Amino acid sequence: MDSFVIGVDIGGTGTKFGIVDNVGNVLFASEISTKKHEQVHTFIDELHQELSILIEKVGGVGRIKGIGVGAPNGNVYTGNIEYAPNLPWKGIIPLARMIQDKFKIPVRLTNDANAAAVGEMMYGAAQGMKDFIMITLGTGVGSGIVANGQLIYGHDGFAGELGHTTIIPNGRLHAGTGKRGSLESYASATGVAESAIEILEKTDRPSILRDVPKAQLNSKAVFEAATKGDEVAKEVFDFTGKILGMALANFVMFSSPEAIILFGGLTKAGDLILKPTREHLEANVIEIFQNKVKILISHLKESDAAILGASALMWEL
Amino acid sequence: MDSFVIGVDIGGTGTKFGIVDNVGNVLFASEISTKKHEQVHTFIDELHQELSILIEKVGGVGRIKGIGVGAPNGNVYTGNIEYAPNLPWKGIIPLARMIQDKFKIPVRLTNDANAAAVGEMMYGAAQGMKDFIMITLGTGVGSGIVANGQLIYGHDGFAGELGHTTIIPNGRLHAGTGKRGSLESYASATGVAESAIEILEKTDRPSILRDVPKAQLNSKAVFEAATKGDEVAKEVFDFTGKILGMALANFVMFSSPEAIILFGGLTKAGDLILKPTREHLEANVIEIFQNKVKILISHLKESDAAILGASALMWEL
Repeated sequence: MDSFVIGVDIGGTGTKFGIVDNVGNVLFASEISTKKHEQVHTFIDELHQELSILIEKVGGVGRIKGIGVGAPNGNVYTGNIEYAPNLPWKGIIPLARMIQDKFKIPVRLTNDANAAAVGEMMYGAAQGMKDFIMITLGTGVGSGIVANGQLIYGHDGFAGELGHTTIIPNGRLHAGTGKRGSLESYASATGVAESAIEILEKTDRPSILRDVPKAQLNSKAVFEAATKGDEVAKEVFDFTGKILGMALANFVMFSSPEAIILFGGLTKAGDLILKPTREHLEANVIEIFQNKVKILISHLKESDAAILGASALMWEL
Repeated sequence: MDSFVIGVDIGGTGTKFGIVDNVGNVLFASEISTKKHEQVHTFIDELHQELSILIEKVGGVGRIKGIGVGAPNGNVYTGNIEYAPNLPWKGIIPLARMIQDKFKIPVRLTNDANAAAVGEMMYGAAQGMKDFIMITLGTGVGSGIVANGQLIYGHDGFAGELGHTTIIPNGRLHAGTGKRGSLESYASATGVAESAIEILEKTDRPSILRDVPKAQLNSKAVFEAATKGDEVAKEVFDFTGKILGMALANFVMFSSPEAIILFGGLTKAGDLILKPTREHLEANVIEIFQNKVKILISHLKESDAAILGASALMWEL
């Protein structure tokens, strides 16, 4: 009988999960809210309830080899989520153990972006690559770094927090970390919305974004305005791409990857953000790195990619 | 009969070389100028002439297993030095092949800071570590990154150019690269001298550095003034440590090393630079990295360390 693995991708807003076969098909998938669960216990209860429905569809828990979990600040060595700024649960959460206790199945947990990197290496744009960096541009900015064909975990399991690197000293405040000028404070969905508000407030230039209520001024609204030719909206993407390109240049000079793979909501803006990103990457690397590094968009179906990545952690074993 | 290896460390100013036995003793060593050789051919001629004297002392070329070379922008995959901003030879220099042709001995070449990292791992402060970053603070700022117990070379052999990462966007111009605001433009010996001149010119504050002719205002002069209690000189180190600490914070969030090992002239300033460096590292990392990373000073004898590191490349084979 075939066995399956479960992939769970925990994001700041929602948690996606699904059952995956051994060739990377997501057979059944669903989603719950992360945000509404102030307590991790009620989150695990709802996850168990919803996942059990899917597990029954493939023949029960006996068919499941294990659960791979990708989560912000997830640590592969300890199975804990530690001090994740974008999750409702503060401090150190022994999530792998808690899920294992609830489901009675082996659980492996890592950083959500590390999971995505494994997914890209097994099924996506990084197949065959030994050196690449995965950057996820969602509510936050995550990263997974592969060098010499291996994920870089660091001495404590926390390597690859590139979203929190400082790009603009004394720059924009990040509410979750209290730090200023991090990549995430600019190049996340939240950051794009904040940039739009800043540019609108700084000038009197006309923009269709002025008709959007502030609470609805998100990265999607900015994207839609930009595709209609709105100059302010285009400037928001130029600015975001500039910061992202500067950051990627630093990352390139660190590990000299063959490619940087971008994933997540912001990549839907396509050339609006890719063009300035490429331009500022090239302008900020020294000569030996110029015109060498590919910037690729993940071509995994977005709804599947995170689940595939998390599930791939279990096949890795 | 015992065999030996040769270590050659090529710096922007001088080139050190020596003969090393298999337990890490530098038996004979010497040095020539790099800077005065506008042509790489005359450099290799002088290196051959001076090294031959040492080779005779250990019983001739038959006793030499090979030559390990550390050089700025040295590439382990190709044996070339490519576009090194701090060397007199521009473009792509097939240095490993040229030295091999001259000496008729196997040659292995890499980035000088990668060589230093291998030296620290074999003989120095990083013994037993699997994840650390080596930063060399000399005429320039070099780096070697070890993760999962391996040097990170990247897809093209050029990983670890951390001195060229941007720390202050639109900051100080680096004459060699044309880039602005790189770590090297502040935290090198050259950068410290430039910071001293800037601070002296910006204010009227009294300082014994005002009596030093500009051409002699180097990092050594600033260090001596600081040890005499000169406030301006101390501010120079505070400022340098601040930039260095900010940069190290970004590197920590990349590969989460157990330790950062500092090496080179600037480390002689001890706590004058270490204290602000530690402080700004801690202030710029997110919570999960705080109070975890050791900052260590290389305890290898400076005259030996670079030679040991380069020679270790040959024992590695």
